[in-house]
Amino acid sequence: MEAAGLTVQIDPVGNVFGLPPGDETCLLIGSHSDSQPEGGWLDGAYGVIAGLEVARAAAEAGGPPIAVVSFQDEEGRFGPLTGSRVWSKALSLADADKLTDTSGQSLADARGGAPEFCGSSFVSPDRFCGFIEPHIEQGPDLDAHDQTIGVVDGIVGIRSEFYRFKGQQNHAGTTPMALRRDAFQGLARFTNDINRQFADIVTPATVWTIGHAVLHPNAVSIIPGCVDFSVQWRDADDARLDRMTEIIRETGVRVAEGSGLEFERSAFASISPTRTDQRLMERIAAGAQQKAPGKWRHMPSGALHDAANVARLMPVAMLFVPSINGISHDFAEDTAVEDLIVGAEVLAGSVCEVL
Amino acid sequence: MEAAGLTVQIDPVGNVFGLPPGDETCLLIGSHSDSQPEGGWLDGAYGVIAGLEVARAAAEAGGPPIAVVSFQDEEGRFGPLTGSRVWSKALSLADADKLTDTSGQSLADARGGAPEFCGSSFVSPDRFCGFIEPHIEQGPDLDAHDQTIGVVDGIVGIRSEFYRFKGQQNHAGTTPMALRRDAFQGLARFTNDINRQFADIVTPATVWTIGHAVLHPNAVSIIPGCVDFSVQWRDADDARLDRMTEIIRETGVRVAEGSGLEFERSAFASISPTRTDQRLMERIAAGAQQKAPGKWRHMPSGALHDAANVARLMPVAMLFVPSINGISHDFAEDTAVEDLIVGAEVLAGSVCEVL
Repeated sequence: MEAAGLTVQIDPVGNVFGLPPGDETCLLIGSHSDSQPEGGWLDGAYGVIAGLEVARAAAEAGGPPIAVVSFQDEEGRFGPLTGSRVWSKALSLADADKLTDTSGQSLADARGGAPEFCGSSFVSPDRFCGFIEPHIEQGPDLDAHDQTIGVVDGIVGIRSEFYRFKGQQNHAGTTPMALRRDAFQGLARFTNDINRQFADIVTPATVWTIGHAVLHPNAVSIIPGCVDFSVQWRDADDARLDRMTEIIRETGVRVAEGSGLEFERSAFASISPTRTDQRLMERIAAGAQQKAPGKWRHMPSGALHDAANVARLMPVAMLFVPSINGISHDFAEDTAVEDLIVGAEVLAGSVCEVL
Repeated sequence: MEAAGLTVQIDPVGNVFGLPPGDETCLLIGSHSDSQPEGGWLDGAYGVIAGLEVARAAAEAGGPPIAVVSFQDEEGRFGPLTGSRVWSKALSLADADKLTDTSGQSLADARGGAPEFCGSSFVSPDRFCGFIEPHIEQGPDLDAHDQTIGVVDGIVGIRSEFYRFKGQQNHAGTTPMALRRDAFQGLARFTNDINRQFADIVTPATVWTIGHAVLHPNAVSIIPGCVDFSVQWRDADDARLDRMTEIIRETGVRVAEGSGLEFERSAFASISPTRTDQRLMERIAAGAQQKAPGKWRHMPSGALHDAANVARLMPVAMLFVPSINGISHDFAEDTAVEDLIVGAEVLAGSVCEVL
């Protein structure tokens, strides 16, 4: 960022802003730099680097001033999109500090060891007239239709929560099945039960995932006394997300009652569906039509992005480039280099148009 | 062992024998010293220490020579009862060396770092006229009936195997449910499916346990691409154990086919049901009637024990003391001190009778 002539400001939650000289209102471009365990090389990093290149090129060519951001913890070590949630005031820093990761470490502890941003201040959103987030699609649509650019018209909402079934750890040979309080069996019942109920209310675009589960003590010869797990569910309709929340929580309570278990829940997180800004979206569409005529489309984002939080503060838009075979959050994640370049060119064109 | 006048011999698989002076045939007493993660203080250790005390007291009092053993890896880090399986030739040392623990380390690697027994030799079973294994019950029966001694008339058979469902790791927001190959969902389906089928063929004494499961990469926002898990099943009837084996393997294949997953299995282990020796059992029963009149019973062992392997070599018997509230393999595992003492006294009486 400094090499591109930007002044770096790291805010108290760890978001990294690169600000152009002067104080005139400018466009903000960026995404995040973190990824998932075994995630790929592009994910959010593409949006940060594409934004940085546009800022650098604009400064070099005497174009409009451009600011760049890399948001902290987009991938949810402490909860979904922690950095942009705090910056957008969807979550206070004090509440964020209480969030813990799956190993039990709190955000307060984690950022306590980073003095370079703990004494800093937040960047005022008044500085920015809008936010564009370039990103890889992370799904199969553009690649399957041989298209280069996706102009995002909305971002699905997301909910997530952590749960625990607690039973009685005991010997796997001497404890009759009828007397067991097996936490893992509770999780298996819960999983099948919510699948059955969701079938009646979802659309083909609704998704839900049990991605994290840890048995305790996790030994072949011991009845699991405890299982901690996550459920995450996404949809474009807030009412459907509410109904899914009810089903998950009611099913947890019912399975626990029927299996001699206790059911606990914690760390509920919710981000509502977001619509992108009409004017910004049209500028990106115009840029796409110029650089990739006939090879772009409007589309929703099934993945959650920082833009969903930033939309609380200013107009936002997103631009997608294809993910080969729709693979993301995996080492195999990739995009053709020519598509990465066209994405940056469309972005640059949009920037000149909007200002 | 040395303080009790015994000569220590650690064999190549790590079993620890304490041998009395001379070479006359003698009785062997013992169990194992390892326990489970978060297991209690008694488990196999009671049998080793009770045997050692009887050996010590017999030497002091001019009684019969007694040998003591602590078998290696009874709890199955590398598979059930590794030490006694190898000593009894149910498993060759070469095959045992290929066994791996849940972290992937092989027994060959693990024992490679223990030079004190890698150059040693196995103790000949011809030295022993029989084996008595004292142990805590690890179940609720004796405690619930306010009894002090269980005389074991048989040990259930056990089977265990490791499995893997392999799917496709992917983004939890952008991958439609219909296109997912979610390994954890496969495990949930498998678990409920075998439960349903087992209901038709089991007895109230049959047990099965999924105690170990690890999702990969185990992150909230990633569809699990892989899950490794164990199933362990126990029953007194070998034919029923065979039928359960078929159901488990067939269900794994069918669930995988229906869910776009691959199904792999490995490290199958099997120990058949065992009957204990009539003559040894009668001597323990006589001792129990003398030391705890009306407060003992004949009973089967729902837990597997090293005696099941040693029965391939010589007559075996087992003696149980109560587990408070039936709890074992948990820090809360305990037995009243007076019951531990009566157990050792019954053992000492039986030893004098049998020789």
